[in-house]
Amino acid sequence: MSIVTLTTDFGYSDSYAGVMKGVMLKINRELEFVDITHAISPHDIQQAAYVLYSAFSYFPEGAIHLCVVDPGVGSNRRPIAFEAGGYYFAGPDNGVFTKVIEKLGPSFIYEITNPDFINRSVSNTFHGRDIFAPTAAWIARGGFAMNALGPQIVDPTLIDLPKQTQSAPNLIEGRIIYIDHFGNAVTNITSGLIEKLQKELGAEGVEIEFPSGVIKGILKNYSESPGGAAICATIGSQDTLEFFVRSGSASATYGLSVNDDVDVRFY
Amino acid sequence: MSIVTLTTDFGYSDSYAGVMKGVMLKINRELEFVDITHAISPHDIQQAAYVLYSAFSYFPEGAIHLCVVDPGVGSNRRPIAFEAGGYYFAGPDNGVFTKVIEKLGPSFIYEITNPDFINRSVSNTFHGRDIFAPTAAWIARGGFAMNALGPQIVDPTLIDLPKQTQSAPNLIEGRIIYIDHFGNAVTNITSGLIEKLQKELGAEGVEIEFPSGVIKGILKNYSESPGGAAICATIGSQDTLEFFVRSGSASATYGLSVNDDVDVRFY
Amino acid sequence: MSIVTLTTDFGYSDSYAGVMKGVMLKINRELEFVDITHAISPHDIQQAAYVLYSAFSYFPEGAIHLCVVDPGVGSNRRPIAFEAGGYYFAGPDNGVFTKVIEKLGPSFIYEITNPDFINRSVSNTFHGRDIFAPTAAWIARGGFAMNALGPQIVDPTLIDLPKQTQSAPNLIEGRIIYIDHFGNAVTNITSGLIEKLQKELGAEGVEIEFPSGVIKGILKNYSESPGGAAICATIGSQDTLEFFVRSGSASATYGLSVNDDVDVRFY
Repeated sequence: MSIVTLTTDFGYSDSYAGVMKGVMLKINRELEFVDITHAISPHDIQQAAYVLYSAFSYFPEGAIHLCVVDPGVGSNRRPIAFEAGGYYFAGPDNGVFTKVIEKLGPSFIYEITNPDFINRSVSNTFHGRDIFAPTAAWIARGGFAMNALGPQIVDPTLIDLPKQTQSAPNLIEGRIIYIDHFGNAVTNITSGLIEKLQKELGAEGVEIEFPSGVIKGILKNYSESPGGAAICATIGSQDTLEFFVRSGSASATYGLSVNDDVDVRFY
Repeated sequence: MSIVTLTTDFGYSDSYAGVMKGVMLKINRELEFVDITHAISPHDIQQAAYVLYSAFSYFPEGAIHLCVVDPGVGSNRRPIAFEAGGYYFAGPDNGVFTKVIEKLGPSFIYEITNPDFINRSVSNTFHGRDIFAPTAAWIARGGFAMNALGPQIVDPTLIDLPKQTQSAPNLIEGRIIYIDHFGNAVTNITSGLIEKLQKELGAEGVEIEFPSGVIKGILKNYSESPGGAAICATIGSQDTLEFFVRSGSASATYGLSVNDDVDVRFY
Repeated sequence: MSIVTLTTDFGYSDSYAGVMKGVMLKINRELEFVDITHAISPHDIQQAAYVLYSAFSYFPEGAIHLCVVDPGVGSNRRPIAFEAGGYYFAGPDNGVFTKVIEKLGPSFIYEITNPDFINRSVSNTFHGRDIFAPTAAWIARGGFAMNALGPQIVDPTLIDLPKQTQSAPNLIEGRIIYIDHFGNAVTNITSGLIEKLQKELGAEGVEIEFPSGVIKGILKNYSESPGGAAICATIGSQDTLEFFVRSGSASATYGLSVNDDVDVRFY
């Protein structure tokens, strides 16, 4: 059984994700599907890039990660597939793989053009079904080199994702990059950099500023919150700083959004 | 491994769909489940008929399609199962299979009455668990003819679904039959009929009228939209005309609903 | 293939549930996942206890039931696993297993402390990924006794769940314990006790009182409703009394909530 994961903005009410699975099973019965999510906000490439990145490496090597958030379907945006870090990836060349490529380094990326690996008839509105699903199912069957899929491309589309910066000896500037289901606001500020500065500076404390307030300290876990609607910070499951509210949504209660500035200041 | 797909209105918050899978696995461990959706609007038989139809044929032959949108559960509506087009179907006899039966033609349909293929105890509120899931799991195990399930029925319930009509040499009248997760409004007007008329008439252009407006032309894909909130038409993944808005919901922005009239006029 | 079910409050938009599956597949490829639900209300232990209870026994023996509704993650609440009734369970020791333990009776429950069965690095915010998923995957691989996981605990956390009481010869007092996706309001009043009293009393009729009204009679199924927005009672799929509205939500229409009092009075 090969593992195929799916990350899409198709939602859960239509047959789109199920149809992709059917198409794959017609080509290859030895597949085990894992839905990462089908609830990426419609057309939100940045969100897809983050969610895929947060998940891909937890799977066994050989897993095939399909990502179909594809506002440019049917246009001249290229369908691509590649192998990197022991995993396979397939989806539109629109930036959804930005964080994966940044993490795993350069790899050989191919435009999917070979008709042997896609549906005989290709619609202009659903390449998940007509291109990416068949390609994934064929990759899982194996028996060919990835360059059989089509020409190599050397300029994959990468989107500009905000990065943390150390803008003063005692200051890290970052951003909120994701709001999760609990309303936790995940930043791009890593525990690694926080710990490094704290150690270097022998800092007494840390102050975290966000658009609607300032808090002090980073809690060890959610339970250390004083409770109620107090906004707190902790290190989340991706080893980055995140805001939370014990019994509610930090995002809703404090108006936090993706791309909000966050400053971490040691004193 | 046999494939069992599920199309229900059970939603994602309760244990109902999971329970159906457990019941099936107790009878037959060699099953691979694919959720088409559990988010059919509660009791919406017409929507279920469309969603099932849009998905079933993408699966390998032998797949068993369970459809449980069943407002009449526990009443005298019949539980049915049948084989058609190489697939198996099980669910309530309330019209959910209308489009499948129309497409695949007449077949032998059986009322599920044989206690060997259903739970020992049958509730009046959850035949998905007590009748349809066990029947599907037994069908997947095989070793019996479908008429072992119960008496053949010759009058399956078919619901009256709107059909496109060519009501003048240059006019197709149809309806919106589905609103998807993106707010795209799918009609029952086929690309086949559109292309046929366009060719026959040597038409210069096409005008599409819907309750809240008129637009000209059918775009090749979503990216050809002028953008923003402009409503546009394209041919969707079921080869039918659909309305979309590039960066939003056509349904919400233009107040489009299922059963709205749509006219396609060539000039 | 071993069966692993998942009951969480992770929702469907993040990668959390998918990541848990990836972690398990890295340890054990022979797993079949069944999502019970990921839509438990955030941190709602009582709801999780009910949903897990409503589902677990429908699975084949040997199934491993993961339940991760874990507001105390990273604190001193214990991670536990146990075998009971032929099933395995893993999750936080916060009461999510209350109804399972009540039903299956005492069993040997272990705190998961052995580093061989958990991730090398354990975060303070995601034990689903770092402790419960690995433990479940190792249990599925087998080859060790459950007490290898860690020390036995004899005081598992049990939450106080409302119970039906017969407070007069002709009166059952209970509570609404769950609102489902359809808005049906499920009570903890069993059909067993209702039938017993009805028989003992030779009762002519039954009257059901809830905060916003009183109705007479228990219908055989949903179709017996007079229709529209009338609130009715029937015996639901867990063999307990439930309120429903034929073409809508009983909960929304009549303001019914979990923990509302319900009286069943025979006359």
